[in-house]
Amino acid sequence: MTDPLPLGSTIGILGGGQLGRMLSVAAARLGFKCHIFEPGTKPPAGDVAHAVTTASYEGIDALTRFAKACDVVTFEFENIPTSALDVIEAHALIRPGREALRVSQDRLTEKNYLQDLGLTVAPFADIPDAAAMTQAMNTVGTPSILKTRRFGYDGKGQARLKTPQDADAALADMQDAPAILEGFVDFDFEVSVIAARGPSGDVACFDPGENVHRNGILHTTTVPARLSSAQKTDAVLLTAKILNALEYIGVMGVELFVADGQLIVNEIAPRVHNSGHWTQNGCTVDQFEQHIRAIAGWPLGDGTRHADVVMENLIGDDMDRVPALARAADTALHLYGKAETKPGRKMGHVNRISR
Amino acid sequence: MTDPLPLGSTIGILGGGQLGRMLSVAAARLGFKCHIFEPGTKPPAGDVAHAVTTASYEGIDALTRFAKACDVVTFEFENIPTSALDVIEAHALIRPGREALRVSQDRLTEKNYLQDLGLTVAPFADIPDAAAMTQAMNTVGTPSILKTRRFGYDGKGQARLKTPQDADAALADMQDAPAILEGFVDFDFEVSVIAARGPSGDVACFDPGENVHRNGILHTTTVPARLSSAQKTDAVLLTAKILNALEYIGVMGVELFVADGQLIVNEIAPRVHNSGHWTQNGCTVDQFEQHIRAIAGWPLGDGTRHADVVMENLIGDDMDRVPALARAADTALHLYGKAETKPGRKMGHVNRISR
Repeated sequence: MTDPLPLGSTIGILGGGQLGRMLSVAAARLGFKCHIFEPGTKPPAGDVAHAVTTASYEGIDALTRFAKACDVVTFEFENIPTSALDVIEAHALIRPGREALRVSQDRLTEKNYLQDLGLTVAPFADIPDAAAMTQAMNTVGTPSILKTRRFGYDGKGQARLKTPQDADAALADMQDAPAILEGFVDFDFEVSVIAARGPSGDVACFDPGENVHRNGILHTTTVPARLSSAQKTDAVLLTAKILNALEYIGVMGVELFVADGQLIVNEIAPRVHNSGHWTQNGCTVDQFEQHIRAIAGWPLGDGTRHADVVMENLIGDDMDRVPALARAADTALHLYGKAETKPGRKMGHVNRISR
Repeated sequence: MTDPLPLGSTIGILGGGQLGRMLSVAAARLGFKCHIFEPGTKPPAGDVAHAVTTASYEGIDALTRFAKACDVVTFEFENIPTSALDVIEAHALIRPGREALRVSQDRLTEKNYLQDLGLTVAPFADIPDAAAMTQAMNTVGTPSILKTRRFGYDGKGQARLKTPQDADAALADMQDAPAILEGFVDFDFEVSVIAARGPSGDVACFDPGENVHRNGILHTTTVPARLSSAQKTDAVLLTAKILNALEYIGVMGVELFVADGQLIVNEIAPRVHNSGHWTQNGCTVDQFEQHIRAIAGWPLGDGTRHADVVMENLIGDDMDRVPALARAADTALHLYGKAETKPGRKMGHVNRISR
């Protein structure tokens, strides 16, 4: 598809969480309808969507009907089973494409891909078995983090090694899943670049934001990040390099460590990203609309930052603070309408704006 | 209801057009679900709502089921049949309340109400019949506008009288509907104040915007309006006076003529208003969220204006300009997802921002 998606077309979204929800609202703002595919009942995105299919990713009939009802299909998470993508691809265009998913679904593939592009990544080693682990203690060493190669998010499927004595316990934590050992980077801070690329190759990056995590979950993103002008340029250029190499279509989040002034690529996410939520109140066109524009083949929008923003996630009991937050000046609330509050669950976020 | 509406509650919206659509998105952002009631099929609001009831305002069963499914019911237009409101009121709270609808559904009642509040309105006369028209030629005279007392919008149900010779033709245009003759105000410009009032009596006004109409339909709203500081204060105070007198809950649009420095109340709309669309890109909390906050008994949000904005409606063939508008800097597109483009139909709007 090279022609722009016509007004009134239907965009399919795999995943009905908060990212799908905010994508659906952005798509509606441009005159598109959204169809959500989500195994779980009462998905947050379902409250703002044209249609919802509740079915598993193994349900070939449901996937087929869904794909036939959509003009283009996108996703809010990267761990989509390959078999589901195969079914969808027979009937509808998938954007971003399969290559970005292939690379980002596997931490080892991703690290090799980034390294082959000439980018700096943390020291890493493939850990298929205990013997590899013993060897990796000599190359990567400690402190380091053992991670499952696939299906990790928000700090899950990870074990920290402070000393080589932690290796056995960490390996046991992986429960025989293929893993990768990553050298711990003693970074000064972390930033992320949210970037979009359209089918014609145009790339637009939002200003880098600075991330703070708590318990392995993003806590705040602050713009502007503490980057020098040269670092900001470098961050944007290396991000564009990744998107161009993948011939990527859509929005991608790229997390970078800043260590001794150097930019080290931590990971890429082939989708809208939690660290880009500040764009909703800091830019004319936010990351969600930018993603929709890209996958629809529309011109990318004006993502110039017009305010300083601190985005803070509302996680679990943070929801008790909503009444106070609702009263605060220069504060935009974004709640996800999730029925149940659980510890560690992302329930909403707040953007605090200063000009 | 004095307690704030709990998260996850359902808000009913009578009317599924663009105003209902944008209200529904704002409600979702605060964690509420929206249920749209609309006689027409494929309502624009249906694409971003939790539930849709397609039924007529005469359908008592459908209205009852709808009302029972909602925690509070609001509306996107003022011409709701009284009988429908009676059915809903038996099962759900209606906000804004019936008094605001009673006053604003009838131009004569509205004019009298505003005059009784000590506000300035254009000269007017009740025109129940031809004899009253003859008499009104001596009191109101010409130029003037004959309007049906009820069910007019976007310039419909109106006839202009340049000279007394136009009286018979204008009366015939009314097709025996009760009418009101309004003296034509030779105004310098028109502004509107979008204001919100919560159940506890707190009032918040957005900055007045300056309106330009074409063919009886709003064309642009520009903020800031060309008002002196004193005029701006007066506009806000008189608006608050109306909301307080009505013990109003929700957002109201108040249109004012500025003539020789004087503020003349043209009309009030007990709902979010087209001339308030600029708030989507000019304020942290827009008129739609402000309305939801008010009817939910939440604290009103921060509606401080942080940019200059020109809102332009996209009407009918203006949609041909969407590809160019999508490329423009500092320009936010808001499309309504209407299936068919017709002359005079509001298809979307664009907010052009400058800082």
